[in-house]
Amino acid sequence: MSDIWLSTLITSTPQTGYDLAIKLSRMAVKMTQPDADIREKLRPGYAGNAADLIAISHIVAINFQTVSAANGYWDVDTASMT
Amino acid sequence: MSDIWLSTLITSTPQTGYDLAIKLSRMAVKMTQPDADIREKLRPGYAGNAADLIAISHIVAINFQTVSAANGYWDVDTASMT
Amino acid sequence: MSDIWLSTLITSTPQTGYDLAIKLSRMAVKMTQPDADIREKLRPGYAGNAADLIAISHIVAINFQTVSAANGYWDVDTASMT
Amino acid sequence: MSDIWLSTLITSTPQTGYDLAIKLSRMAVKMTQPDADIREKLRPGYAGNAADLIAISHIVAINFQTVSAANGYWDVDTASMT
Amino acid sequence: MSDIWLSTLITSTPQTGYDLAIKLSRMAVKMTQPDADIREKLRPGYAGNAADLIAISHIVAINFQTVSAANGYWDVDTASMT
Amino acid sequence: MSDIWLSTLITSTPQTGYDLAIKLSRMAVKMTQPDADIREKLRPGYAGNAADLIAISHIVAINFQTVSAANGYWDVDTASMT
Repeated sequence: MSDIWLSTLITSTPQTGYDLAIKLSRMAVKMTQPDADIREKLRPGYAGNAADLIAISHIVAINFQTVSAANGYWDVDTASMT
Repeated sequence: MSDIWLSTLITSTPQTGYDLAIKLSRMAVKMTQPDADIREKLRPGYAGNAADLIAISHIVAINFQTVSAANGYWDVDTASMT
Repeated sequence: MSDIWLSTLITSTPQTGYDLAIKLSRMAVKMTQPDADIREKLRPGYAGNAADLIAISHIVAINFQTVSAANGYWDVDTASMT
Repeated sequence: MSDIWLSTLITSTPQTGYDLAIKLSRMAVKMTQPDADIREKLRPGYAGNAADLIAISHIVAINFQTVSAANGYWDVDTASMT
Repeated sequence: MSDIWLSTLITSTPQTGYDLAIKLSRMAVKMTQPDADIREKLRPGYAGNAADLIAISHIVAINFQTVSAANGYWDVDTASMT
Repeated sequence: MSDIWLSTLITSTPQTGYDLAIKLSRMAVKMTQPDADIREKLRPGYAGNAADLIAISHIVAINFQTVSAANGYWDVDTASMT
C-alpha cells in the first residue's frame, strides 16, 4: 500500500467530495482485509443486506462531513465558518 | 452515475436541508447496491423493522449536521459560529 | 409531506432544543415509513427493547449536537465559539 | 414532561459536565418509554450486558462532546476555539 | 461517585489525551453498572469478542475527538482552529 | 504500554493522516485486549466478516476526522476554518 491514493481532501464540487467520501470509506476495509478475493466474496452478502447497506451509508456520512469541512462546504460565502 | 445530483449543500430552509440529508443518506446505498430491483426488494424489510428505521434516522442525523453547518444553521444572527 | 415542520433550528432554551432534537430523530423514521399504522405497531417492540431505546437516544444525541451548535449553546458569554 | 430539567448546558467542571451528558443520554430513553416500571424491568438486562453498556457509553461520549463544546472545554486559555 | 476523577480535559501530550479518552469511555460503563464484580465478569466476554472490541474503540475515538479539540490538537501552530 | 506511540497528530499528507487514523483505531483494541495471541486469533473472524469490516471503517472515519482537523485539512488556503 505504498501507492499515493490520497493526496488532498479538496474537490471541485460537493458531488466529487461525496465520491471521495466513498473512497475513504472503502479504503479502511481494504487495509484491514487486503485480500481482494475475500472482499469480493463478501460483496453479494452486504450488497443484499439492508443493515449492512445502512451501515456503509453511515460511514460515508462521517467521511463526507470531513471532506465537506475541508472544502469549506464548497461555498465560502454562505458557509458557517466564515 | 455520471449525473449531477449534488451541486451544492446550500438550501433555502432547514426543512429542505433535511430533505437533502435524506438524499445524501440514500445515495451511498444506491452506489453500493446499484441494482434498483434489489434495493426495492429490501425496502419492505427495513421499512418494517424498528432497528433498521432507527439506523436510517441515525445517518440522516449525521448528514443533517453537515448540511446545517454548510448553511450556517440558516440563521447567521444567532448561529454559534458568528 | 409538503407541510412545514422545520422552519428554524433556533429554540429559546436547551430543553426546547432537546425536544426539537427528538422531533428531528422521529421525522426520518416517518419519511422512510410513512404508514402511521406500521409505525404504531412497531412502537411496543422498540419501546420495550433496551437496545432500541439506546439506539434512539444515540440519534437524539447527534441531533441535539446540531441544535446546540445552531443556538450557540444558548449562552454566548460562556460558549466555546465566542 | 413539562418540568424544567435542562435550563443550561453550562457546568462548573468537566466532571459535572460528564454527569450532565449522562442525564442527557437517559432523558431520550425516558421520553421514548415514559413508563418507569418498564424502564426499571429493562435495567438488569442492559446493566449486565456488555454490548448494551458499551452502547450507552457511546451516547454519553456524544453528549459529552456537546457539553464540552458548550463550556469552551472548561479552560479557555488552552481550548482550541480561542 | 463523589470522587473527583475529571478535573480537566487538558493533557500534556496526545498520548496522555488518548489515555484520558479511554478513561472517559470506561466511566460511563462504571456509572451504569456500579457493581465491579459484574463488570469484571463481563470482561472476558467482550475482551475476546471482536465486535465488542471494535465498539469500544469506536467510543474511544469519539472521546479522543473531544479531548483533542480541548487541547487545541496539542499543536496550536498547525491546528485548524487558529 | 509506557512506550511513546503518539507524540503528535500532525502528519505531512492526508494519506499519512489516514494511516494514523488506522493506528488510533487499533490502539484502543490493544489496550482493551493486551494479549496479542487473542487478538491474532480474532483476526480471521473479523477480517472475513462484512459487518465487522464496516464497523472498523466507521472508527477509522471518526479518527480521520480528528486527524484532519488537527492538520487544518492539510490545505489552509481552502480549509473551512480559515
